Amino acid sequence: MNAKPERIIIFDTTLRDGEQSPGATLNIEEKLTIAKQLARLGVDIIEAGFAFASPGDFEAVSKIAQSVGKEDGPVICSLARARRDDIKTAAEAIKGAAKGRIHTFIATSDIHLQYKLKKNRQEVLALAEEMVAYAKSFTADVEFSPEDAGRSDPEFLYQVLEKAIAAGATTVNIPDTVGYLTPSEFGALIKGIKDNVRNIDQAIISVHGHNDLGLAVANFLEAVKNGARQLECTINGIGERAGNAALEELVMALHVRRQYYNSFLGRPIESEEPLTNIDTRQIYKTSRLVSNLTGMLVQPNKAIVGANAFAHESGIHQDGVLKNKLTYEIMDAQLIGLTENQIVLGKLSGRNAFRSRLRELGYELSENELNKAFVRFKEIADKKKDITDWDLEAIVNDEIQQAPDLFKLELVQVSCGSNAKPTATVTLRNPNGEELIDAAIGTGPVDAVYKAINRVVNVPNELIEFSVQSVTAGIDAIGEVTIRLRFEDKVFSGNAANTDIIAASAQAYINALNKLYLSLQNPRHKAEAAA
Amino acid sequence: MNAKPERIIIFDTTLRDGEQSPGATLNIEEKLTIAKQLARLGVDIIEAGFAFASPGDFEAVSKIAQSVGKEDGPVICSLARARRDDIKTAAEAIKGAAKGRIHTFIATSDIHLQYKLKKNRQEVLALAEEMVAYAKSFTADVEFSPEDAGRSDPEFLYQVLEKAIAAGATTVNIPDTVGYLTPSEFGALIKGIKDNVRNIDQAIISVHGHNDLGLAVANFLEAVKNGARQLECTINGIGERAGNAALEELVMALHVRRQYYNSFLGRPIESEEPLTNIDTRQIYKTSRLVSNLTGMLVQPNKAIVGANAFAHESGIHQDGVLKNKLTYEIMDAQLIGLTENQIVLGKLSGRNAFRSRLRELGYELSENELNKAFVRFKEIADKKKDITDWDLEAIVNDEIQQAPDLFKLELVQVSCGSNAKPTATVTLRNPNGEELIDAAIGTGPVDAVYKAINRVVNVPNELIEFSVQSVTAGIDAIGEVTIRLRFEDKVFSGNAANTDIIAASAQAYINALNKLYLSLQNPRHKAEAAA
Repeated sequence: MNAKPERIIIFDTTLRDGEQSPGATLNIEEKLTIAKQLARLGVDIIEAGFAFASPGDFEAVSKIAQSVGKEDGPVICSLARARRDDIKTAAEAIKGAAKGRIHTFIATSDIHLQYKLKKNRQEVLALAEEMVAYAKSFTADVEFSPEDAGRSDPEFLYQVLEKAIAAGATTVNIPDTVGYLTPSEFGALIKGIKDNVRNIDQAIISVHGHNDLGLAVANFLEAVKNGARQLECTINGIGERAGNAALEELVMALHVRRQYYNSFLGRPIESEEPLTNIDTRQIYKTSRLVSNLTGMLVQPNKAIVGANAFAHESGIHQDGVLKNKLTYEIMDAQLIGLTENQIVLGKLSGRNAFRSRLRELGYELSENELNKAFVRFKEIADKKKDITDWDLEAIVNDEIQQAPDLFKLELVQVSCGSNAKPTATVTLRNPNGEELIDAAIGTGPVDAVYKAINRVVNVPNELIEFSVQSVTAGIDAIGEVTIRLRFEDKVFSGNAANTDIIAASAQAYINALNKLYLSLQNPRHKAEAAA
Repeated sequence: MNAKPERIIIFDTTLRDGEQSPGATLNIEEKLTIAKQLARLGVDIIEAGFAFASPGDFEAVSKIAQSVGKEDGPVICSLARARRDDIKTAAEAIKGAAKGRIHTFIATSDIHLQYKLKKNRQEVLALAEEMVAYAKSFTADVEFSPEDAGRSDPEFLYQVLEKAIAAGATTVNIPDTVGYLTPSEFGALIKGIKDNVRNIDQAIISVHGHNDLGLAVANFLEAVKNGARQLECTINGIGERAGNAALEELVMALHVRRQYYNSFLGRPIESEEPLTNIDTRQIYKTSRLVSNLTGMLVQPNKAIVGANAFAHESGIHQDGVLKNKLTYEIMDAQLIGLTENQIVLGKLSGRNAFRSRLRELGYELSENELNKAFVRFKEIADKKKDITDWDLEAIVNDEIQQAPDLFKLELVQVSCGSNAKPTATVTLRNPNGEELIDAAIGTGPVDAVYKAINRVVNVPNELIEFSVQSVTAGIDAIGEVTIRLRFEDKVFSGNAANTDIIAASAQAYINALNKLYLSLQNPRHKAEAAA
């Protein structure tokens, strides 16, 4: 990828920067599931993690490299600070991929040099050169980021980039680490780099940004006009603080407005050739998967993937849309794979119908997973007349992609009401297979269940978030419960779906507790992560 | 407001375009509560509704004009199509305000002329002039919008604007109705208007936009650089489809980057003078109030007001922030009024402590409202040790700002569990005071409650959304339930808070049913609304 491409490269960092969202911690299985879906979506590069951060991160990057980093699949990338041990670990983690990339970074702004790195400019310049060369000894595909580029002295930034490219960086990524820049400023920053870094034609210019002022997507689009050809983004825009630039917004803006952007990519204005490799019809499904597994809800008024994004409320709009879609619509809901919530299966549907519909939805399950999911499907079909695609996705996500099964929930039983003390009884099995049973009174039924579980599990934790969303419309909808627990400075999320929200709440709590319990067994030495 | 201001005018349309969000329907009391908070926030203009749309909309605009449109308060505005009866109704609705504005609009793009209006350009030109003059006969403050300006022929747009200003429009608002433009294009559109509309110095240029491609805020900031001085925005960016530009993002971008924007407003670069009149410390509270009352959740990675916007997850960021805040923070959480979740009251707190803390939080309750809220506070304090500010806000929002009390929930009683059939018993009182009681079995406890309620209420409806959020951290947190029902083509939301989510679910359902029931009694002839 050394030559200037005619198209925009999509670098997805949902599994690295996205996973840094408070509360969005994912386990290895969940990361693998998301990586597979990102490959179906057609992203060019998956930043799968920060291999040096912990053994868990290393294992996740390594597994994704092996099973998703195929010859015709995406490039698999690991982040690494500009340190030998970091870079070496990243190189080992991506070894299994057909195409692997090391992404190394060091800060270049004076405020970071002074307070964080405690190094002077000459030291940073030397380190950037040395560490890119070291990364290059492992893989031809090396990306370099000057962290906090947006607040760095441009002249120093140009020097660092020139050294990094000379040392072998094939992509140079310009991060607006604190989400401070406006579009014109970001565009000018990229133009300055293009005009002043002598060997810039030997590397692809990439951008990374944060949405603190709501400007990340606009900043990237302006960067494209000024020469950036790789966009670092996340599904649903998750990430540190207010998150990263949202992949779906970037891709759809480039799609809907391709005739505007064509000229900046040296194409004929009327060209209908897509600007990215993304299969837009996979966008909605990917968004839901990431939202489910991270527990990061998508607000209804979120652009592209929010529940209201394609809904028209007011009379005049509805009227206009009926007369001519183009009066109020600039894109078609089908484009992002948002199809009607079709009724496909019911309690009489057999195993083959179930398997083939799941395959159509893009789920490839092992025989064992299929069995588990089918049992669950039959249970739900007994309670709920029509099983829609969304129900199916909830069943699969819930049944297959779960936390380690250390504590198992065997029974939960609740009575509550406006005139009663909410009371819960639970039966669990601990990791040694012993049965634990107890009851508790709470301020409400969920509180009672959680107190009863706490009595037998005895893992200290603080509940910091509890939310329930209905997956499908209708009074007998499946409810999806997401909870987050805090233990010391770490946050663990749990997710479960059921038509009974009390049962789902109990299971979500157990799932989160299992993650917490696992982390107590294998302490994770989370190192620094950034950009 | 005829002279060019040195600052940016904030025009809030949460109650008009924001309320057009599918499912965000507000009743009159809720609108009044939001309007009062918008006045505390310091917005310059409140677009309170579209008076002609229905008797309910008329009443809401009229009440807000009377009780919020004080001499030292905001301008109160009603939207009106470019039709005599629309404009006359708007004029009557804003009569009670010390400062009232009529905002009239007509589409100017060829696609809208051809398919929606079925009028030619000459007819539209004549109508714009005539209707602005007619509005001017009621109030000196008239705003005119050429709908779908972003896709209109610029030459025709200039002509229409010139006529509107000549006829007395003091503000001309340029809407990107379909959210199609990019920042540079929107900036160029405003510059074109400034350069080509001969009498443009006699009016303030305003902008209105939609976030379909995630660019609304960036578009507005670019418009400011090119001469726009009024921004039409909503709290949390709610509105049609993917919503409007978010007020909090615009205001904070203009605040954090004021030295960048100063020069475009003819100020000295180093000036610390605020660019807007907004009291930023009211932002967080306003965001929560609007989210609670509309049922439009705010995602954790939402800029400025999302739960994660000021959180730092990764080790390196936390480390950096501890060493020097400026390494990763560009603004202080205090600035938006996000204070620590302070523990202020407990079960021993008296009525005076309760009243005075509510006053500090900005709630002015009548004696009757205070009594109801205090009873509720005591109930909660019995169950929950520490009552935080957020708990207090939940109590007040839930107890005071509620739907009409047509059906009353007297008792709910549930038993459920993994080995039991979820069963609910409910007792209600109907609008005639008769007691209704029944039981039902459901797929889960909430479903059982809803089925039992449906048996006695018998108002047909479809549940389209159900969500629960914990208001505060901690296992005994108050849960806030939001539901949306559909009846024919209308959506009704209900909201309730309780430590028992089953009780909250029942109450939220009753609240939504009461709104639906009311609408069946007083059918609302929702006319067209737009822009």
